[in-house]
Amino acid sequence: MDEFSLINRFFKQAVREADLGVGDDAALIRVTEGHQLAISTDMLLEGRHFFSDVDPYTLGHKVLAVNLSDMAAMGARPRFATLAIGLPKADIAWLKAFSLGFFELAERYNVELIGGDTTRSAEHTFSVTIMGEVPHGQALRRDGAKAGDNIWVSGHIGTAALALLGLKRPGSFSDEIMESIRSALETPIPQIELGLGLRSLASACMDISDGLIGDLPHILQASGGGAVICWEMIPCHSALKAWLDGDKEASKRHALQALLAGGDDYQLLFTAPPECDEQIRSLSETLGVTLTFIGKIRAAPGVFVISNDGSLLEPHYLPNSGFNHFADIK
Amino acid sequence: MDEFSLINRFFKQAVREADLGVGDDAALIRVTEGHQLAISTDMLLEGRHFFSDVDPYTLGHKVLAVNLSDMAAMGARPRFATLAIGLPKADIAWLKAFSLGFFELAERYNVELIGGDTTRSAEHTFSVTIMGEVPHGQALRRDGAKAGDNIWVSGHIGTAALALLGLKRPGSFSDEIMESIRSALETPIPQIELGLGLRSLASACMDISDGLIGDLPHILQASGGGAVICWEMIPCHSALKAWLDGDKEASKRHALQALLAGGDDYQLLFTAPPECDEQIRSLSETLGVTLTFIGKIRAAPGVFVISNDGSLLEPHYLPNSGFNHFADIK
Repeated sequence: MDEFSLINRFFKQAVREADLGVGDDAALIRVTEGHQLAISTDMLLEGRHFFSDVDPYTLGHKVLAVNLSDMAAMGARPRFATLAIGLPKADIAWLKAFSLGFFELAERYNVELIGGDTTRSAEHTFSVTIMGEVPHGQALRRDGAKAGDNIWVSGHIGTAALALLGLKRPGSFSDEIMESIRSALETPIPQIELGLGLRSLASACMDISDGLIGDLPHILQASGGGAVICWEMIPCHSALKAWLDGDKEASKRHALQALLAGGDDYQLLFTAPPECDEQIRSLSETLGVTLTFIGKIRAAPGVFVISNDGSLLEPHYLPNSGFNHFADIK
Repeated sequence: MDEFSLINRFFKQAVREADLGVGDDAALIRVTEGHQLAISTDMLLEGRHFFSDVDPYTLGHKVLAVNLSDMAAMGARPRFATLAIGLPKADIAWLKAFSLGFFELAERYNVELIGGDTTRSAEHTFSVTIMGEVPHGQALRRDGAKAGDNIWVSGHIGTAALALLGLKRPGSFSDEIMESIRSALETPIPQIELGLGLRSLASACMDISDGLIGDLPHILQASGGGAVICWEMIPCHSALKAWLDGDKEASKRHALQALLAGGDDYQLLFTAPPECDEQIRSLSETLGVTLTFIGKIRAAPGVFVISNDGSLLEPHYLPNSGFNHFADIK
């Protein structure tokens, strides 16, 4: 099967909202009047971002999901995507499952695949560019957080990292728990509706892809200031909570690592002034998405991780990511 | 050097026309009123699209050039690009040269790099998404060719393939000739101004990336009909011409292969009704770009390659690409 029949068979769809889709030198789209186009690109590589034996359906889902998550983080409504794909061989069953995973998620958010590229490669290689729209001036940027703002997260944090640990060390969890946590890792659901709802509320927003303690400094770097967060307030799966509260020292350490430095959850991390608390709680109810207050933005630089009693988390519990409480993140 | 310092050092530029550039979850741009956005993605992989020891400056140039060429083919004015890049290691000298090659070409066409992704990978991996603007309805698509239209190409055809052959078989050409042909392969110049000039003239247009005889059927597939082209009218470098006209059978075969099936030239292939001939010749003079009439669109399907005397090119000279005169390309 050559490149063109592969594209036609698995990746060409009838154009809906684009003016021209797959099959010409470029796609043509129009942007709604009064809107900005939000654009983001992510590359996913075998061995680095996914295992070589990963289920192609979940891979197709995830390749798009991580990009949709960037749209959520901007408060943009996703509209179009391009997909560049490198494959070791044209495996029909694999392509069928991959494209199904991709398009099922695309349709859920009304995203059109308008172009791309396929090529032969030693390892599975993907690069997605996603485009979405946001009314002019309403995008959720990283640079609007102010001292005194509350820090919030959506959903549960650390579940994907816990699932990864479970996959690497079979037997760590019961089949039932594994079942309930691995979807966070394999088929994360981007927080699109939440991003749209936060447009008028959040002062800064990003998605957590590299871990809470690694990502929060990006907001601080863009906005100025520092932060204090309480690790005991960070919402997590009951299996993670059990490790945190248990008396096994190694499990507690793993759990804190997952909670503070685990990536891949694709939840939103955002800040908002305290007067928005009520509206945020109401948005949480409307959408059925857990939104949890976990800390405050401060004027002074540095990120401090405290416990419920206000004491600093002991340094030996901090993630092995070079993070320390006093790092100057300016 | 981590991902963020690498991006900041080599790929972050002050925003000019974008509303938000590198550094947030997504970039933000506005599209000029009355314009469509043209979008194209290309992936380039080590070993497949370039040699592993390629000069990083020329690679940076080419990674962008092949994408700009898609904008030229659409008659779009390039404006923004994203770059996803996978690297085996963070080699400062390499990154410096690569980014220089990329940005020199970007500035020539006023293209802004607004986002991307960097990751560690076994082999050098690049994916560029390019965005350009075209006034609504004026894009050069592939589906407008009509029976009776003339077929044109820009510049010289087959030079890049000839240079590739010269690199693979050192000694095939003098140093002087090698010098004059390898820039077509390594630092091709996209025909942006030509694409803009053809907006009101061409009935169909595409860039030649996979070779003339491989690419022409894409126009025919989109527009319907067939074509006849005269191989002796296809403009080429004097070194290629010497092989075509010489009496060495093997050289003639190589030359015809380069001319008809050689890719990577990134010249434009376009069709236009005969009444536009005068304007096309005048555009050629204005831009200083050779534009050459090489054949005609016909109502009947099939691509026929003829000689000056009207006879069909002998089948044993046809490229080894499965092409034959009577292939139904519908």
